[in-house]
Amino acid sequence: MEFTLSPAQEQWRDAARCFAQQRLAPRYQAREQQGRIEPEVRLEMGEHGFIAPELPAALGGRDLDRITSGLLVEEVARGDFSVAYLQIVGSLVGQILVDNARADVAADWVPAICRGERIVGIGLTEPHAGSDAGMPELRARREGDEYVLNGVKSLSFCNEAAAVVVFARTSEQQRRGKGISTFLVPLDSERITRELCSDMGTKAVGRGEVHLDDVRVPADHLLGEEGRGFTQVMRGFDFSRALIGLQCLGIAQVTVDETWQYVSRREAFDQPLSTFQGVSFPLAESETLLSAARLLCYRTLSLKDQGQPHTAEAAMCKWWAPKTAFDVVQNCLLLHGQYGYRTELPLEQRLRDVLGLQIGDGTAQIMKLVIARERVGRALAP
Amino acid sequence: MEFTLSPAQEQWRDAARCFAQQRLAPRYQAREQQGRIEPEVRLEMGEHGFIAPELPAALGGRDLDRITSGLLVEEVARGDFSVAYLQIVGSLVGQILVDNARADVAADWVPAICRGERIVGIGLTEPHAGSDAGMPELRARREGDEYVLNGVKSLSFCNEAAAVVVFARTSEQQRRGKGISTFLVPLDSERITRELCSDMGTKAVGRGEVHLDDVRVPADHLLGEEGRGFTQVMRGFDFSRALIGLQCLGIAQVTVDETWQYVSRREAFDQPLSTFQGVSFPLAESETLLSAARLLCYRTLSLKDQGQPHTAEAAMCKWWAPKTAFDVVQNCLLLHGQYGYRTELPLEQRLRDVLGLQIGDGTAQIMKLVIARERVGRALAP
Amino acid sequence: MEFTLSPAQEQWRDAARCFAQQRLAPRYQAREQQGRIEPEVRLEMGEHGFIAPELPAALGGRDLDRITSGLLVEEVARGDFSVAYLQIVGSLVGQILVDNARADVAADWVPAICRGERIVGIGLTEPHAGSDAGMPELRARREGDEYVLNGVKSLSFCNEAAAVVVFARTSEQQRRGKGISTFLVPLDSERITRELCSDMGTKAVGRGEVHLDDVRVPADHLLGEEGRGFTQVMRGFDFSRALIGLQCLGIAQVTVDETWQYVSRREAFDQPLSTFQGVSFPLAESETLLSAARLLCYRTLSLKDQGQPHTAEAAMCKWWAPKTAFDVVQNCLLLHGQYGYRTELPLEQRLRDVLGLQIGDGTAQIMKLVIARERVGRALAP
Amino acid sequence: MEFTLSPAQEQWRDAARCFAQQRLAPRYQAREQQGRIEPEVRLEMGEHGFIAPELPAALGGRDLDRITSGLLVEEVARGDFSVAYLQIVGSLVGQILVDNARADVAADWVPAICRGERIVGIGLTEPHAGSDAGMPELRARREGDEYVLNGVKSLSFCNEAAAVVVFARTSEQQRRGKGISTFLVPLDSERITRELCSDMGTKAVGRGEVHLDDVRVPADHLLGEEGRGFTQVMRGFDFSRALIGLQCLGIAQVTVDETWQYVSRREAFDQPLSTFQGVSFPLAESETLLSAARLLCYRTLSLKDQGQPHTAEAAMCKWWAPKTAFDVVQNCLLLHGQYGYRTELPLEQRLRDVLGLQIGDGTAQIMKLVIARERVGRALAP
Repeated sequence: MEFTLSPAQEQWRDAARCFAQQRLAPRYQAREQQGRIEPEVRLEMGEHGFIAPELPAALGGRDLDRITSGLLVEEVARGDFSVAYLQIVGSLVGQILVDNARADVAADWVPAICRGERIVGIGLTEPHAGSDAGMPELRARREGDEYVLNGVKSLSFCNEAAAVVVFARTSEQQRRGKGISTFLVPLDSERITRELCSDMGTKAVGRGEVHLDDVRVPADHLLGEEGRGFTQVMRGFDFSRALIGLQCLGIAQVTVDETWQYVSRREAFDQPLSTFQGVSFPLAESETLLSAARLLCYRTLSLKDQGQPHTAEAAMCKWWAPKTAFDVVQNCLLLHGQYGYRTELPLEQRLRDVLGLQIGDGTAQIMKLVIARERVGRALAP
Repeated sequence: MEFTLSPAQEQWRDAARCFAQQRLAPRYQAREQQGRIEPEVRLEMGEHGFIAPELPAALGGRDLDRITSGLLVEEVARGDFSVAYLQIVGSLVGQILVDNARADVAADWVPAICRGERIVGIGLTEPHAGSDAGMPELRARREGDEYVLNGVKSLSFCNEAAAVVVFARTSEQQRRGKGISTFLVPLDSERITRELCSDMGTKAVGRGEVHLDDVRVPADHLLGEEGRGFTQVMRGFDFSRALIGLQCLGIAQVTVDETWQYVSRREAFDQPLSTFQGVSFPLAESETLLSAARLLCYRTLSLKDQGQPHTAEAAMCKWWAPKTAFDVVQNCLLLHGQYGYRTELPLEQRLRDVLGLQIGDGTAQIMKLVIARERVGRALAP
Repeated sequence: MEFTLSPAQEQWRDAARCFAQQRLAPRYQAREQQGRIEPEVRLEMGEHGFIAPELPAALGGRDLDRITSGLLVEEVARGDFSVAYLQIVGSLVGQILVDNARADVAADWVPAICRGERIVGIGLTEPHAGSDAGMPELRARREGDEYVLNGVKSLSFCNEAAAVVVFARTSEQQRRGKGISTFLVPLDSERITRELCSDMGTKAVGRGEVHLDDVRVPADHLLGEEGRGFTQVMRGFDFSRALIGLQCLGIAQVTVDETWQYVSRREAFDQPLSTFQGVSFPLAESETLLSAARLLCYRTLSLKDQGQPHTAEAAMCKWWAPKTAFDVVQNCLLLHGQYGYRTELPLEQRLRDVLGLQIGDGTAQIMKLVIARERVGRALAP
Repeated sequence: MEFTLSPAQEQWRDAARCFAQQRLAPRYQAREQQGRIEPEVRLEMGEHGFIAPELPAALGGRDLDRITSGLLVEEVARGDFSVAYLQIVGSLVGQILVDNARADVAADWVPAICRGERIVGIGLTEPHAGSDAGMPELRARREGDEYVLNGVKSLSFCNEAAAVVVFARTSEQQRRGKGISTFLVPLDSERITRELCSDMGTKAVGRGEVHLDDVRVPADHLLGEEGRGFTQVMRGFDFSRALIGLQCLGIAQVTVDETWQYVSRREAFDQPLSTFQGVSFPLAESETLLSAARLLCYRTLSLKDQGQPHTAEAAMCKWWAPKTAFDVVQNCLLLHGQYGYRTELPLEQRLRDVLGLQIGDGTAQIMKLVIARERVGRALAP
């Protein structure tokens, strides 16, 4: 067991921290206003190798270990939480394509994702269905060399995405998780309409819905086998849950760092705020929880790198890190008093942003279910 | 001891609930957009007797008990949290004027407050000072029949207020809470500039700052005695802390009520969400805490009505009810999944709104200090 | 609404506090050592009217309101938590007998309970069954003028009880809560063996099991109707849940009171401990929660007195007050440092004692279920 | 970064788990009854290399890394929490002697500690002083080749210890942490009296007080320099805080493991308890927190092994792991219902045992102070 970063990992981390401070943080609030991430930022992220660097170099990645990927997410999130979604979605979709797409399809899309040229969204859930991704209403029927798709999917980067990976029902048997296939759906069809959601945070991510009305997808855009798409692809999610954890921890840690500075400078009753136990003790508690949660995420990524099971570990990251991060950011906001509540400081935006990941990619309840199943088996779990 | 409402109290409560549902709730989000409360809503509130009804009828009030005032705040906050600020500020300023203003000044202002015609803000804190109201930088010097004021004050309803009650230093001795006087400052002077703050919530309240630059106030607008303003007026705060508690509990309770409905209708894994213990148990916990906090607030109001000490009790209301309400609203938002995070439902606005009252009117740290002082005395308290 | 005690209530409370301090507290630890409550204490409790004073005077009670009963439980628990079990069990069994027993049976037993002469235990659960009281394995079959009982029941005061109220199955239909009858079983039969449990706390209560082996009970000792015992009797539990809440709050409050004294006297780093926010703030939080929980209990008792529904309210008291009390006592123990961990002070015994009531009379999970059912109905609840 | 154990580490862990299950667990309750650890268990611990194996082989240790030491503590604590105190005290005192004792003194004592032949206690605190170890009242004055000591010290293994390491004031300047020297005091003097404390838990550890009345210690038993003992020796504490964390996590984890088994077997309402979310979700939460806290401890040990600063990290382990472990054990106890409350199962003893380490070796408040100091410096910390 060994807890220090390699020099290479440190270099990557420092590069990302520098980029986040200089290029991302200054326009964090502007990106929310505009509801999008500037394409040039996306390209720079790609150029630096910050998107899905764990993918094979042959397909545009950097062959890096996933702890490095995690460090990059963490650092980017310190500067702009929404920009880190590019990394989460990139890593997730990238891996799905690498593992499941035909070679020519992967070669067409994966390098473009890594370079930040194209966004490929991930459309697992449907507006009506929440955490229950195993019962999609999106239908795909085979017609010659094509599949014809009908339905609605929710995704991030709704307006910017060039394509989306979706689950669709290809068989009429109605058992949860069965008869479902995965497709890569280019979004350039005229039979697709996009509708933006109005969310309380992460507005630069532009979550929305795509409505597919007899959209035709070439049969070679099927990912994995027909009818087995759910099980095959859901497996990939475990790893990204640790990335999401680190994304939330990054935004929380930068907030704690700034809050220590604030309470050291600001006085009340003629003393620096930091000298009050009622101020410093909650911050010390925050440091503890963030440190612990971070290690949980790193370990999960390390297990993935070593090809070991990590389903329960990933679920732990997903429920606990976002919750802890939210609580920490909220406390820091309160410690800033009226300034924390104002929109000049980024605190309130961070609180709104980080809240979303207690919902997206599976609620805490789902995660605890996963942990229980790993401990007592599906039959004895809730 | 007796825990049932009188028929009169029930009538007031029902009237307010009806008004809140029909007149307030439908434009809750619109008021945030516009950053103000429509003057006609204010007048209707006054007409119904919903503003400061505990004040003497001779001065425009209704001679009601304060539990009724609390019920009215609670109900109004169910419909629109920001509108309830009119009640909090009205009750607080109204009482300060009734207790401390010259009779003619009181007769001029108090009835107008109760009718909703005029808002008189309360400017205790200054932008630099946060919870430490005992060391104002606002200066007032006597010149003949006038006081001349210089400095800055934060207040709610910055743009709408016709006047503001402020603390100003009238003596150069620099001891905390000493040499401070209270004034009623009409805001129609050209030597006043108003600056709106940009807050993350309660935008319809229009918090902001007034800058006073040699503003002249008639000497008869001094409230209480010169130099003793801080102690005299701070006393009145205790009671309003219970009102603030109920304001927060009102918005939390309506959210819990709606969430029970939502989880009873919405299904996951082929069952209503409400049948999952992971969903219903946190709601049951919320019900418990809201019920308990509500009683704490009613008791504090009852003590005030009976002229009994209630400083510790009020501080309990002020730290615990807003915190509990925030936690409850956040949990309800999460139980709504992606819908909770969207701006179509009022949940996210409620979360942003209710957060502010963990800061305004004194942080949790201040309140715990107050409680400790009441238990062990000032010398042994932190 | 009215939150002050009547002079009569204050007198009762003061009498109980005085008794608790003088007669109970000094032998709190001794009673644990001996594993029983001295019969003379029981008789004095009865003489003072501290046991089930809400029962009708005609049957030995005092016709008092139930808030007074609650105050008495609270005060007695301050002195000795285990002694307060006499009150809880007395009120519960007393009411069951008053409501369901034949007049001559009630006249025989109820006054003796109130006088502290006899203890009648309540044997709802069985060792194997925990919170699920609706499926007893105890069997009762009618034979002539008698019922013959076989099975095992858990109860408090196992060694001291003169009789026990039990649920037994009188019909072989196996639906939960159906076909169950309630009996008053005198414990003087030779066909009964008693077995003491070894618990971590409340050892003076002497929880144990009675094994019934063809025990014959006169038919007139049936309480309520045959086969309807479960529903009839379970109703009475609601009220006692608020008493249990107050029992736990009493022990927690006396501990907080003592801890304020301790931290005001004891110094660290040359200052009284109480001047540290890290010490006083948690105590201020404890004061808040105890105050709120206490009101919740009083309100529940008041609803019972007025014949209004109070099932959800009682369930709130039962899960939240014992949990809060445990947390508060634990924190106080920690604030006493090594002294808190030692057996010279009563803190550690209190912690062990109060823990048991998060289990006895229904777990938190059961209580949240009850609350959910009251909100959304049985079909939509978990 | 690397999160897997080496084969050697796994072997050590497995050996300790096996020993804990077979030799320790069966007499966990008996050791409490007898208030001591059998000397033969101590010797076996030594023979297996379970005591202070990170010490140099030349002095009886095994030259192992400290993560292995941590694993051994964790495993031993699963079987008997009190026995793990031998390891904590052994590692702590062993290192103090290795770093500060004269070579011949170290050679006399350290191997005997590692072999389990002798216990050397650590007497930092005094009965009156709690967490404030920097102001001892124990006095040592030089007389020729000896020091003469007077005062009282608290220590574990009061009756069994052959010697104790103490802080004593050797200079009359009264500044905290200054003028303090450290001594190794053999406990065979007739001028020493031992007095056992009666604690609520870890009774086999036999905490107590030694009273020194003109006790003469050879001058070569001074550890480190005269007057600099406090700073020199307090440094060593950081590392042992992570061991304490693992001790608490070990007892909590074995309890969670057993509870999963219990709730999988036990039924309520005709279903295994584990199928209820209200049962399994808290266990899933426990798994998460224990996993995270464990990594925090391992990392601290790894930092120590690499000679890197780890003061804040150790303080995080010390406040959070014992608190989390206590909460987890408490919840598991409750999930066992009445069985959890009974003394037949080891749950209640574990709860009592683990509670002590929220106090011993520094309260949570002290630890948060340490963390704050590491973040903002001593001047800006509370």
